[in-house]
Amino acid sequence: MASIFTKIINGEIPCYKIAESERCFAFLDINPLVKGHTLVIPKQEIDYIFDLPDELLAELHLFSKQVSKAIEKAIPCERIGVSVIGLEVPHAHIHLIPINSVGDINFSKSKLSLSGEELEETAKIIQQNFIA
Amino acid sequence: MASIFTKIINGEIPCYKIAESERCFAFLDINPLVKGHTLVIPKQEIDYIFDLPDELLAELHLFSKQVSKAIEKAIPCERIGVSVIGLEVPHAHIHLIPINSVGDINFSKSKLSLSGEELEETAKIIQQNFIA
Repeated sequence: MASIFTKIINGEIPCYKIAESERCFAFLDINPLVKGHTLVIPKQEIDYIFDLPDELLAELHLFSKQVSKAIEKAIPCERIGVSVIGLEVPHAHIHLIPINSVGDINFSKSKLSLSGEELEETAKIIQQNFIA
Repeated sequence: MASIFTKIINGEIPCYKIAESERCFAFLDINPLVKGHTLVIPKQEIDYIFDLPDELLAELHLFSKQVSKAIEKAIPCERIGVSVIGLEVPHAHIHLIPINSVGDINFSKSKLSLSGEELEETAKIIQQNFIA
């Protein structure tokens, strides 16, 4: 069965898209730790990040760099933190999280509750700052 | 002034080394969240991970994949989690953390206190499983 992320890529489930390349895709986490929390995934459905072929793993991280530069311009923050956990959705994904302190990356924290309008607006500002 | 990590690379400060390549270096975090918690750094002292040139960023992540494969073989765990925060030491570093649950990556948690012998032993087992 296709992962929820594959359904997002295929447009079967809606998302707040940030950017895509031939093999990678970025969209907002709808249960964000902070505003601007973004997920970057390979279009190919591979569960574990370290099972990605070298070339795709490198490409995914370079795409994440481009996305991070856009988030930095859109969201006031110290820098963009990176996290890969991958125990919940069996489709490798990189969390890009605008941070101001070490405690900002803590998946045990309660998530922000943002309205559809806020997510839409956030995605739009990041998109506008994305340079392909 | 050289970062603490540059001093480690240069051998001015001791470390529990895991592996190195021409441009990357891996060693145990001495304040680990869990046993096997490893840091991977570029030898070049660059503060922010997304300021690394593309080629070096890709190389650092591919080196991290190799190191992760070794950690997985050495330390019983579900998979290796990845985290980059970078607000404390101004020298980019990737945390590789053996995890069994989402809560295992939480830098607010108190760190493990391992003896020198335990760290030495852990480094040795990971080293032995490293394939360059």
